[in-house]
Formats: sequence, structure tokens, C-alpha cells
Amino acid sequence: MWKDKNTWEVKLFSPIRYNPGNLKLIDQRVLPLETTWLSYQDLESAAVAIEEMVVRGAPAIGCTAAFGLAVDIYNAYNSNKDSKWLNYKEQFYLACDRLSKTRPTAVNLFAAINEIKEVAQTFDDTTPLSKAYNLVENKAMEIFEKDQQTCLQIGENSLSLVEDGEKVTVLTHCNAGALATAGYGTALGVIRSLHKASKLKHVYADETRPYLQGARLTVYELLEENIPCTLNTDSAAAYIMSEKKVDMIVVGADRIAANGDTANKVGTYMLAILAKHHGIPFYIAAPLSTFDLSIQSGAEIPIEMRTTKEISHFNNKQVTPNGLDIINPSFDVTPNELITGIITEKKVLKPPFKEDIRTIAGQ
Amino acid sequence: MWKDKNTWEVKLFSPIRYNPGNLKLIDQRVLPLETTWLSYQDLESAAVAIEEMVVRGAPAIGCTAAFGLAVDIYNAYNSNKDSKWLNYKEQFYLACDRLSKTRPTAVNLFAAINEIKEVAQTFDDTTPLSKAYNLVENKAMEIFEKDQQTCLQIGENSLSLVEDGEKVTVLTHCNAGALATAGYGTALGVIRSLHKASKLKHVYADETRPYLQGARLTVYELLEENIPCTLNTDSAAAYIMSEKKVDMIVVGADRIAANGDTANKVGTYMLAILAKHHGIPFYIAAPLSTFDLSIQSGAEIPIEMRTTKEISHFNNKQVTPNGLDIINPSFDVTPNELITGIITEKKVLKPPFKEDIRTIAGQ
Repeated sequence: MWKDKNTWEVKLFSPIRYNPGNLKLIDQRVLPLETTWLSYQDLESAAVAIEEMVVRGAPAIGCTAAFGLAVDIYNAYNSNKDSKWLNYKEQFYLACDRLSKTRPTAVNLFAAINEIKEVAQTFDDTTPLSKAYNLVENKAMEIFEKDQQTCLQIGENSLSLVEDGEKVTVLTHCNAGALATAGYGTALGVIRSLHKASKLKHVYADETRPYLQGARLTVYELLEENIPCTLNTDSAAAYIMSEKKVDMIVVGADRIAANGDTANKVGTYMLAILAKHHGIPFYIAAPLSTFDLSIQSGAEIPIEMRTTKEISHFNNKQVTPNGLDIINPSFDVTPNELITGIITEKKVLKPPFKEDIRTIAGQ
Repeated sequence: MWKDKNTWEVKLFSPIRYNPGNLKLIDQRVLPLETTWLSYQDLESAAVAIEEMVVRGAPAIGCTAAFGLAVDIYNAYNSNKDSKWLNYKEQFYLACDRLSKTRPTAVNLFAAINEIKEVAQTFDDTTPLSKAYNLVENKAMEIFEKDQQTCLQIGENSLSLVEDGEKVTVLTHCNAGALATAGYGTALGVIRSLHKASKLKHVYADETRPYLQGARLTVYELLEENIPCTLNTDSAAAYIMSEKKVDMIVVGADRIAANGDTANKVGTYMLAILAKHHGIPFYIAAPLSTFDLSIQSGAEIPIEMRTTKEISHFNNKQVTPNGLDIINPSFDVTPNELITGIITEKKVLKPPFKEDIRTIAGQ
């Protein structure tokens, strides 16, 4: 189980900690061999932390953005405790814009910013900044705590997918774990819940090139919880599906369109095709906040192209020849017809997804 | 074009050079940033070079084994120039056994050793070792030169797959290039020939985890020849097939069973499934020496499990948490039904492969 020696009380292990004016993030770039917490006491450094992937995973990015806004208004309030919303308002919307530009694919980022904006819309120019600060901070904490509850509920809802007495082998990709959320995880939340319910046999984890979220983060979480697991290269997933008994594939999501098309870490689309070929059920585990009903299909989801240095270099050491063209899409889109079900905190959505999504995520 | 500043005359760039008693290999472990030739003057060190992947690629391994046997008999002859075959015979068969144990999947290794054994079977106990040495060395040179000719012919035969005036985008995996053969390459031989015939538009190269043969070797060869190319992670191949125009996939082979099932670098099976899903033709480029008619189907092909350190470490730096279980199959098997054609030096075989293979490779 997760041991937290910090004074800040945690119910679940989380990559994010917040005290007034002080956001702390576990540095996911140096895990698993180093566990370092970094402190952020201003908006810009928190935005850069998201860009540089100190924190990653759509829900965790959303929580970080919310706390980033809390830190920003905390600083404004502390520099003048008698200030009014009028004096801060412009800076607030600039802060929202700055954070919106950090990672283009994760919809939770925009959802979290919008939730804080909705709070801000209840203020008028004369609202004391002390009150505005308190309400923004409370909303950020609420987003964080709600995400943990959501992950626990996603895990709970997945239990119906496995018969009592049955034990399944699950293959997963990237890290949709505690480290990608406020705690517990989405795909790894499913795995944690199956494990607790004695419904889990084994986990295969794709290493997930180029950033190795599987090799560094997913197996780190699984080993901490003594969940039996094996690491494999992404390109060995097909071999594992044909040679080993894989009962289900569960991955997270960065954005889900109104028709169920799902953007997630590059390689997810590959797994979905391989799963179909092998007759293995393919599940997305994601909170409703991941659905973007303004987008009709996956074709409209912007795919972030990340620095090619993630592929050409390793620990700042060059691997590839000089002058090489490299393509590094960070995400891909899995069309809804390849998805067996989407495990949400409300229920497990089944195809055709469109109506279910409109009913449940549109609320 | 390849520039060779060495005195040893080469027609094609090759990762292997041989002078009597001296086998030289380009150290493929440090390419592309360092070009180092290593010398081998005894059998054991040549065997270790194969095991440690100084040289890799099924045809190149076969040539290296043949030259390893030539080096061994050269040494025996030089230590006693009046010796007879009787005095060396036992050591010869031990040398064959030693080499056979280096890499279990590459059938060309066994084929090359068997070709030399066939020469040895023409000797009797009184055959002068000088004569035996000459014949073994000649056979090794013949295997090497034949492999270059074979690769050139595979490239030539691939031209019929692309209409005159058409230009294709090809995706490839691992390195089935000059570096994997005696020169020119199989899959990269096809790419070279298409390029020379103005039938090639672009190449996408999978980086090929864990050993990064694509990122280190394939793009190195393509850049040297000014062939337009882009590197991608293995798990982005599905994204590229859906977002970019990929006209054909061409990969090499380590062993092909009598029914056409093909063992090649892990990830090949993945690509074949992805190709089928996207309706993209999937070709194997391989010499007839890659066919193993003693094996009826891919199920009988032994899959080498390589050290997990290839995944857990990078340049001797640990990436993954301690105490982790890792699976590292070096190859996978692509069933014949996913293969559009097998490009050989005789012709392009088409499904159903069984009869064609028996007719052509059984000769």
C-alpha cells in the first residue's frame, strides 16, 4: 500500500499536493528511480511543469491547472489583502489562457479551467479578493477530490465486466494510473479494483515509447501494490495477445468525442486493431470529464506533435543519426467501432455510444 | 553512395570484410554515431560477436558464421602446414556446434554452416589441410558474394510490384538492409531498387524496440543514400497508416516455414495485422536461404528470448523499477494469411504459398 510520510494527509496516493499558495508535484520525469517532489508557487512555473511533463495524464493535468489558478489568485490576494476582483480579473483570464496553451489534447485541462471560470463568473468587480480566492481554491480542491472519487467509482463499475470467481489477464498501455489522475487512476483504477476483488490474474504493461510511461510509471505503481505484472515493448503486444491468454485490454483516454472516438496515448489505436484481430475486448476507462461533446468525431481532435528529441535522444544522449526527419505524434484516435465499452463513473457505456454519451456526459 | 576508403575493394557497402584469417565486422552496437570496425582472428570471438550483436540480421549472421569457420581452419592450417583433415576434423565439427548455438531463430546461420559442412564431407582423413582450408574459404566467399547477388535480384524483382510512373511510400521495420546482409539488403534492397527506378516516394522507418535497429541502422543507411525517410516509434505505425498514405509495407525475415509463416523481428506480426486493417499490401523480402522446409508452420519456429536488460536499461542506465518481470521476445511469427507476397531472388511468391515454396525453395 501507499505510504505517505508527509504531514499532509492523503487517503489515496496522489502525484499532486496542495497547500495554500504552494502546489507540489511528484517529478514524473525521474520516476521510478528517484522520488522528487517539486514546489510551484506561481502560475508560470506550474504551466511550464505541465508542458515539460513533470505531471502528465489528462485528469492530473486538469487538477494541476486548477491548483495553478489557485496559486495565482493566492499570490494576488497576499500582495494586497484589501483588493477587489476588479484589480485581479484581467490577470485571471490571462492565467486561464496561459494554462490552456500547455497541452492541446487533454480535454480535462479545459474542463478544469472552465469550472474555475464558472466560479469567477459569480464575482462582480467589487467582490473582495479574499472571498474570490477562497472560492477558487475551494473549487480546485473540489475538482481534485471529485477526481479521486470518480476513479474509485470507475474501478467499482468495472467489476461487472468479470464474472465472480473468474480471474482475468489485462494488458494496458501508457500510464492511466494514480500518477495520471488525482489518485487511484482510470485504467489502473480498474486494475486496482479487479485486484482487490480477486478478479485479476496478471497485467501486461506496454513500455509506451517514446516517453516510457509504462516502463517507468505503470509498473512502478503495480509493484508498489504487489499486483503481478510483466513489462513488454509496445511492438510485442501482438505477440503477447497471440501467445499468452489476454482477456481484456484497458486503457485511459485524453479526449472522447460525442460518437465515442477516443484520443489516447499513441499506440492505443494499434492495440485496438490488434485486440479486434485477436477477439479480445477493448475497454476505455475514463471519467465523464474526458468527453468533449463539442466534438462530433475523432477527426476533429487536435493531435499534439511533441519534440522529436523524445525519440532521437535518451537521457540527453543522441541515438539517431544527424539530420534525420522524425515524426512524434503524442496521441492517436481510436474509432468507436473498435471499442467494446467505455467504463465511466456512472456506468459502462456500450456501443452504439452516441446516445449513451449524449444522455450521460451531456448532463 | 557508399564510400569505402579501405584498401579492400568493395562493390557494395557490407558490414563484413574478410581477409585470410581475419574477419572484420562493423560494430552495429555503436552505429550510427560511431563507425568502428572490429577484428576477429579466432572462432570463439566471432561466435561471441554474433551473440552480442556486433553483427545481426539473418543473412549477415550466416556470412559471419561461414567466415568464422574459415578463420578457424586458417589458424589450424597455419599452426601446421603439413597437417591433414584427420587432425582438424573434430575441431571443425565442434566449431560448427559452437556457431549453431549463437542465435536460434536465424535459419541462414544453419544454412551457411551446412553449406560448409557439405564441402567438408568431400574431404577424407588424408586430405591436406591446405586444400581443405582453401575450399572452406572459397565456399565462405561464395556464400558472401551469392548473398549480395541475391539481394540485388530481390530488389530487381520488386520493381514489378509498382507500376511504371507510380511512386510509393513504404513503411519498414527493423533493419533488413546492407547491414543485415552481405550488402544491399533485402527489405532495404527493395527500397534501394525502387528508389533507383524512381518508383519510391518516401520511407517510414519503425524505430524497432528494444534494440532500435530502425532508429540506428535503417535511417543511417537511408540517409547515406539520400532516400527520403522519416523515423517513427513502433506504436505510431498504426497512426501513420491511417493518417499518411502508406502504399506498401516491406520487411525482412529470419525464417520462413514451408507454408509461408514468417518469423521476423518482434513487431512484424503487429505490422501485418495493422496492414490488413488498413488494406495495405504487406510484403516479406527474403532470400530462398531463409526458407526452412523442415518446418511445416510458424508454430514450430523457436522464438529467441533475449536479455531483459535490452528493455530495463539504456546505455547501461536503468530505466525501470527494481524487481520487475520483463518479457523480451526477439521475434514473432506472422501467419501466411497476412502476407501479400514474398519477394525472393527467383520471383515474388503469392498466396497460397505452400506449393510455390516447395517448388522454388525445395530445389
